[in-house]
Amino acid sequence: MPEFRRDPIIGRWVIVDPSRSFKKMTYSAEEEYPKDVSKCPFCAGNESMTRPEILAYADSCRQPNSKNWTLRVIPNNKPILEIEGALKRRGEGMYDKMDGIGAHEIIIETPKHCMSIADKSEKEYGDVYSAIIERVKDLRRDTRLEYILAFKNYGISANALFEHPHSQLIAMPIVPKRVREEITGAENYFKYKERCVFCDIIAQETSSGIRVVEENEDFIALCPYASRYPFETWVLPKNHFTDFDLLPNKELKSLSKISRSVFVKLYNVLDNPSYSSLIHTSPLKEKNMSYYHWHIEIIPKLTKTAGFEWGSGLYVNPVLPEEAAKYLRESE
Amino acid sequence: MPEFRRDPIIGRWVIVDPSRSFKKMTYSAEEEYPKDVSKCPFCAGNESMTRPEILAYADSCRQPNSKNWTLRVIPNNKPILEIEGALKRRGEGMYDKMDGIGAHEIIIETPKHCMSIADKSEKEYGDVYSAIIERVKDLRRDTRLEYILAFKNYGISANALFEHPHSQLIAMPIVPKRVREEITGAENYFKYKERCVFCDIIAQETSSGIRVVEENEDFIALCPYASRYPFETWVLPKNHFTDFDLLPNKELKSLSKISRSVFVKLYNVLDNPSYSSLIHTSPLKEKNMSYYHWHIEIIPKLTKTAGFEWGSGLYVNPVLPEEAAKYLRESE
Repeated sequence: MPEFRRDPIIGRWVIVDPSRSFKKMTYSAEEEYPKDVSKCPFCAGNESMTRPEILAYADSCRQPNSKNWTLRVIPNNKPILEIEGALKRRGEGMYDKMDGIGAHEIIIETPKHCMSIADKSEKEYGDVYSAIIERVKDLRRDTRLEYILAFKNYGISANALFEHPHSQLIAMPIVPKRVREEITGAENYFKYKERCVFCDIIAQETSSGIRVVEENEDFIALCPYASRYPFETWVLPKNHFTDFDLLPNKELKSLSKISRSVFVKLYNVLDNPSYSSLIHTSPLKEKNMSYYHWHIEIIPKLTKTAGFEWGSGLYVNPVLPEEAAKYLRESE
Repeated sequence: MPEFRRDPIIGRWVIVDPSRSFKKMTYSAEEEYPKDVSKCPFCAGNESMTRPEILAYADSCRQPNSKNWTLRVIPNNKPILEIEGALKRRGEGMYDKMDGIGAHEIIIETPKHCMSIADKSEKEYGDVYSAIIERVKDLRRDTRLEYILAFKNYGISANALFEHPHSQLIAMPIVPKRVREEITGAENYFKYKERCVFCDIIAQETSSGIRVVEENEDFIALCPYASRYPFETWVLPKNHFTDFDLLPNKELKSLSKISRSVFVKLYNVLDNPSYSSLIHTSPLKEKNMSYYHWHIEIIPKLTKTAGFEWGSGLYVNPVLPEEAAKYLRESE
């Protein structure tokens, strides 16, 4: 059973899961995806190789776990967190821990094994967002959960385990540290200014334009002023929304449109980069906050991060966000 | 000129330095160290290839920047921060920035090009610590500086740029985020308990023993309870010390001893791993705090970190710290 352990100094929860396979990765012996595509559990026809599906987009007459779907959601075979059991919060001397309760689901984005981020249609982007929203709405009913993190690791350098296009969703009994920091920071800003810091960022970036990658009626994509990584890109709703899963249908369409466009730009400028993207939304039990604003963070994996950057929290970025934005803006 | 930029949401300072070389690293085309060792600027005989030395350990009759030294400290040729100029704190619309003022020095640990962490003697470990202490004492006089971070990246996977054994020291006008979090967390703990959290950790770990790697009269090495990474190891002074550079001579000897021993264990158990190590000490202007306790954090680079771990602050560690400690404890 995985376990949450709390750092007694800074309060960060870490998942310790000794049942996961630990392989020493030497970087020089670079890993590759399995070659035999016919054994890919995410491909159409291989539905029996996964655990039973939780959700599928398909014709209404289709039998569950059969072929002819366009998107499937399944429980991860090797989940980081498990749904069965109780949290059992307890001490261990001066330390705090609890059982690794939660959910870990895979969103198989398409039945096709090979599909780059540039091949995906607007509808396919939209379907992934819709599936995440459906799953969040369902998981909200589990009162043990505090946060649902939806993310995608794409490409070997981003540690994606499967080549087949997929996103992931981890529902957990804690709020991840980075999200909590954002909420606290945004709350402090609001106390001082009585304005949402994200809304202020959007206003300033729209007016200067130098870090804007693209915008449409409802969304803006930009390279943030204090980007940690080269070509770090955020997508934010222009109207103040706290909760990703309360997104209206019209906005969902605009989001799909700008997502496809931004990922095509990243694909073209950075030559199909590995990346991680995450949806930062509000905790499950804190809705409609006036100071928090959901958004998507995209982190291309172009440089190696030295341990000292994680160990100090000090990042050195060799690319001006204004220049990254210009490259992306001017690309197809 | 590099520039500090402040994230307006969480307040993290990032260094943006467009003059640094940005190379897309694909991981598959793995980089290697330059093959021609005769051109290594850190080797004995090549002193003219570096900027003039700031400090050297050598016979008293030696001319500066000549041969016959055992350790040299030089300014980095491509510093992340520069010593000339003023901070010029200023706004840019809603954002905050200042010039990248500071110092970036390289500690060349030995004239020998090839020396693994297992070859280094106790005296050689001690000399590096002594040199850091001397440099910190000197840099303390610059009142623009708030923090000095001493660290070492070892091995290609840890992003070390040179094979020749070296440590680095960055003096900066801010306190790095992770250190500030530790100080704030330790202060909160002290307010509640009236005890230092690090002292409490040492007491609990000494009494249970399961996460202890090694100890001597003055120091303890352990795998922390909520380790983020497999085989993460900390070295802490048993007596409460806030400032690394105030370390008495007797403790320096014990530190050199336990350092050599811990790195030999890591070398043996993990087969000469890449790693980053950092000294977490107090900010320059906050001395002798009752709640902060300097220590060394060693992070072997064995697994790849996915972007989602930095983007969420949620770490999944596949190795129990108790097991890592056992492996290390039982190794030579």
